[in-house]
Amino acid sequence: MNEQLPSHFQAGLPDAAGNGLMDRRVLLKRGLVFGATAWLPVASAATSVDNIRNPDLARPQWMREPGREFSTYGAPARFEKDVARFTAPNRVMRNSGTSWTPLHLLEGTITPSGLHFERHHNGVPDIDPGAHSLLIHGRVDRALTFNVQDLLRYPQRSTTCFIECGGNSNAGWNKIPSQSQAGYFHGLVSNSEWTGIPLGVLFQEAGVKRGAKWVIAEGADAFAMHVSIPLEKILDDGMLALYQNGERLRPENGYPLRLVLPGWEGVVNVKWLRRLELSDQPVMARNETARYTDLLGDGTARMFSFVMEAKSLITSPSSGMVLKGGPGLYQITGLAWSGRGRVKKVEVSADAGKSWAEAELQEPILPRAFTRFRIPWRWSGAPALLKSRAIDETGYVQPERQALIDQRGRHGFYHYNGIVNWSVDEQGNLGHVYDELAAQQSGTPDIDADWD
Amino acid sequence: MNEQLPSHFQAGLPDAAGNGLMDRRVLLKRGLVFGATAWLPVASAATSVDNIRNPDLARPQWMREPGREFSTYGAPARFEKDVARFTAPNRVMRNSGTSWTPLHLLEGTITPSGLHFERHHNGVPDIDPGAHSLLIHGRVDRALTFNVQDLLRYPQRSTTCFIECGGNSNAGWNKIPSQSQAGYFHGLVSNSEWTGIPLGVLFQEAGVKRGAKWVIAEGADAFAMHVSIPLEKILDDGMLALYQNGERLRPENGYPLRLVLPGWEGVVNVKWLRRLELSDQPVMARNETARYTDLLGDGTARMFSFVMEAKSLITSPSSGMVLKGGPGLYQITGLAWSGRGRVKKVEVSADAGKSWAEAELQEPILPRAFTRFRIPWRWSGAPALLKSRAIDETGYVQPERQALIDQRGRHGFYHYNGIVNWSVDEQGNLGHVYDELAAQQSGTPDIDADWD
Repeated sequence: MNEQLPSHFQAGLPDAAGNGLMDRRVLLKRGLVFGATAWLPVASAATSVDNIRNPDLARPQWMREPGREFSTYGAPARFEKDVARFTAPNRVMRNSGTSWTPLHLLEGTITPSGLHFERHHNGVPDIDPGAHSLLIHGRVDRALTFNVQDLLRYPQRSTTCFIECGGNSNAGWNKIPSQSQAGYFHGLVSNSEWTGIPLGVLFQEAGVKRGAKWVIAEGADAFAMHVSIPLEKILDDGMLALYQNGERLRPENGYPLRLVLPGWEGVVNVKWLRRLELSDQPVMARNETARYTDLLGDGTARMFSFVMEAKSLITSPSSGMVLKGGPGLYQITGLAWSGRGRVKKVEVSADAGKSWAEAELQEPILPRAFTRFRIPWRWSGAPALLKSRAIDETGYVQPERQALIDQRGRHGFYHYNGIVNWSVDEQGNLGHVYDELAAQQSGTPDIDADWD
Repeated sequence: MNEQLPSHFQAGLPDAAGNGLMDRRVLLKRGLVFGATAWLPVASAATSVDNIRNPDLARPQWMREPGREFSTYGAPARFEKDVARFTAPNRVMRNSGTSWTPLHLLEGTITPSGLHFERHHNGVPDIDPGAHSLLIHGRVDRALTFNVQDLLRYPQRSTTCFIECGGNSNAGWNKIPSQSQAGYFHGLVSNSEWTGIPLGVLFQEAGVKRGAKWVIAEGADAFAMHVSIPLEKILDDGMLALYQNGERLRPENGYPLRLVLPGWEGVVNVKWLRRLELSDQPVMARNETARYTDLLGDGTARMFSFVMEAKSLITSPSSGMVLKGGPGLYQITGLAWSGRGRVKKVEVSADAGKSWAEAELQEPILPRAFTRFRIPWRWSGAPALLKSRAIDETGYVQPERQALIDQRGRHGFYHYNGIVNWSVDEQGNLGHVYDELAAQQSGTPDIDADWD
């Protein structure tokens, strides 16, 4: 043990895995907390003060003058202005591209609607809900339109789920590891409580004809974004979403109507939905052929790969951060999710995958939704390599990057879900590396094609 | 049956209770939906259209021009500007008072942070988190201060729970029923995912001395808002909240540090927390003696009534709304919550309490959190009286207003949780009445004292 470490490191509390990963329950179960005093306090977290006898003497400026009045709709504190989406518009056509959720600056599981990632193909339309309607047609008994006001009378339900762009984390395919912060590398995924109408109810009203197998969904943006979706998924759990996190959808998330297909890649969760056409075959749209299809190593292509597989990401500490307090106790926390159901387990390694400890999962664990994991870590001051891997209820284990490449080749752009490695150097600086031996790697990522 | 009603009303689907309340599962279980075609479609919800053969011909303006570019932090659609907090400042001192969550305009269970209710005593302080700290002192082994940056290293957990002002719904004590919309009558309650540090961890670090029974919590606003809290509650599940709905606390909700005590009245969830003093007795502050104490019918007073009892509210349809489609199918939806744990059941009546049907509860049902309930209702066109009542996991049943008055007298100001009655007239207009016989009552509420 490093002699600089405070005495509580010698307390002998057993580790759960190598290089300082502690039992996940140590801090959160009251009995254990009260039995584990030897390794608290966290170094430098607490110091005594002069103003204990009369705290009034130390009143800051904001206790000496009345505060701001009431507001009809609140906004974040001015000190949090850097907690923002990172916008990455196409260089030529600025209305197309992406903006990224700053996952590394958030906690809990809900993504604030103002920070939900964006993927637009021709900007955010300014839709008057009074002039918008949804057409259901094609292989149905009765073609129907529904205006927004009438839809609000329909039975609704709520589903908390993630929506992840099929191209999220695609810098992982690059030869040189991206040094972007975690959210600007993996933040084309967000998690909301969506409320809307089960589409089966509306399809029942239109009457599904025999032979209908696909649904062509079209948005009311200037790209007329459209894709093909198997009818079965829409009948299973497809939702016509009207509300996001309690209030009506935000414009950039499809106001006034959005298709939500829990667990499936973002592109099929069509925003500004105006049309659902039932068909016997897919429409073979640009966004299911030229895009959102992966060329595999053997020259064949992977199409209609709708489900987002299990994935996890340590959000803190993560690339670009510094362990400012020096050697001592830190909380490792992150997010895990799976398009196939619930996250069953998240394992964390602090020794480059030689040993793994199970992280604490925050209840409730919901299917196809962000699951927050946390585990305490005692950093010795030596270089370390942090990893996390998600295991979902189907038994699927998030793969190492090399295994993913072995399976899918190097020409992929979509559906990257390899294990992420954060390196920690002796100064406590975190970076992104592909493997332990490459811990000294650095550089900028490959140049990605613009999101067009 | 009314002859004007569409034929599907004669389909013979059994009601779950009088005056048209239907089985809660009818619309949401796929088998039932597909077996119940006879009463769909909802009247006037769907009409055929001319543009089916070529939807392109009907493209609206927003499909003919590029949309808005990306934004770093989103906002609601301009068409939703009326979905706002209703601000009710004190007439003399505008920095004190309340603002109300528009519960009647929201769905799901999460309250968007921008619409979380506000209760301030001297405005919202503009706190620089770099200059803010928390002092833990009094009956402890070591008085400690924690700055915000250090606190972010501590182990955190998330809890989704409501916070309700002890004075919420107090217009219910008035002699004449308030005609305010549901959120502006009952909206001093909101529901968020809070993330922060279990306070037991910090108290462990300070060392709780024998004899400590109360904790005096003080905020850093210009009122120096402070109250007394039993130590046991803080050790049980008290949280030092840093995050709300994924991002750092909003200024009006206590940025950068707030005390969260799940299930307990809002006033003890001290915002802008700067000081926790452990003591052997309560401090007898203004907000636990002159305020937040109820005079009972027998002349004694009810003090330290921390827990918010079970309550429910139909948010739609509700007072001030109109059943615009005329007789037909509507969804009744609302919220229920209990400070004692989970909501076990919500019952709805459409015949002034003569019969009750069980509503569908949205999963997951979390302790001390909003639970969304829904039930389909076939309105016949005749006057009706809608009620809901919550039953929590302790077996407690939300009382009728008269029972509450019999128990607590008429001098109460706090902790009103009586059953709410929404009247429906033949034109489909909804209002608020105290009982069936009084369905013709109208008028303005008693003049309330300002929230000072």
